[in-house]
Amino acid sequence: MEHSEQEQHAMDLPPGFRFHPTDEELITHYLAKKVADARFAALAVSVADLNKCEPWDLPSLARMGEKEWYFFCLKDRKYPTGLRTNRATESGYWKATGKDKDIFRGKALVGMKKTLVFYTGRAPKGDKSGWVMHEYRLNAKLHAASTSRGSLSGGRAASSKVATSFHHACVYLACDRSYILGHS
Amino acid sequence: MEHSEQEQHAMDLPPGFRFHPTDEELITHYLAKKVADARFAALAVSVADLNKCEPWDLPSLARMGEKEWYFFCLKDRKYPTGLRTNRATESGYWKATGKDKDIFRGKALVGMKKTLVFYTGRAPKGDKSGWVMHEYRLNAKLHAASTSRGSLSGGRAASSKVATSFHHACVYLACDRSYILGHS
Repeated sequence: MEHSEQEQHAMDLPPGFRFHPTDEELITHYLAKKVADARFAALAVSVADLNKCEPWDLPSLARMGEKEWYFFCLKDRKYPTGLRTNRATESGYWKATGKDKDIFRGKALVGMKKTLVFYTGRAPKGDKSGWVMHEYRLNAKLHAASTSRGSLSGGRAASSKVATSFHHACVYLACDRSYILGHS
Repeated sequence: MEHSEQEQHAMDLPPGFRFHPTDEELITHYLAKKVADARFAALAVSVADLNKCEPWDLPSLARMGEKEWYFFCLKDRKYPTGLRTNRATESGYWKATGKDKDIFRGKALVGMKKTLVFYTGRAPKGDKSGWVMHEYRLNAKLHAASTSRGSLSGGRAASSKVATSFHHACVYLACDRSYILGHS
């Protein structure tokens, strides 16, 4: 209840209104804008470093949310020369589960959604927790096309934006209530 | 998508914000206020006559909502002298399913929620449809106590309000998408 009242206060929303975006809205209205301009800021989506923060510390960094919290984060590479993402924190690691889901706007593939679960300890001997994260990334191909079409600065600028976008993600964090209470 | 844009326009909400109230919020922030003062109006909850409207005509009466729509309605008695609710429309009827659910605010029982399914035709030979309604009513006992405590006009006014509240309900309508397309 406290979070709910904070949320309403922050945006002066009537009771019952919440940030409950669809996958497609998250990608087209939030992530795409952040990738296009790193200065883009949204009250509903804070910025967090998911390698420096444990999942149970993240909710307090969000400006709204009761059971789900949204963040922008820069992906950290596992090795300086490779493309693999570093998903470890000090006390554990995020591990992907299931298949990535394609996100469409109409018939256009605008992005992908990966589901990850947090394990405490070190792989492969970690203990599964109740923390779940959905990581959204842009479809870089579509993004390149739409940016170069929409951009005044032409193809060169567009392709440099795509390079940046590889590292950007939008994250939707959720947790089994019992784990939150256990950890905080 | 059209509904979503209307919604954002009506309240000037950023993308991804929606009216997704909890059962308890619907009762304490909306239904209780409507019962206490029939002039209470909320953008998110329109007024509708559920005996005069078929379910597929209701969404267009709501000022927001994509897959769910919220309405206040006055209950119609089946017989002038009885307490049973008339749930028939011209083309069919709403039939309760399952058990009513108690809605709590903390430990206080603030109201009840009944789930109903729409059948076309006449009972008991109607055909089940994809339209589902959740009907919220106040816990009249709690409401009487809190109204008389909070009211300046004393016990008499409070009890007349309780009499009115018997007829008030807040309704949350949802539909299997395929049925909407089939009907509209």
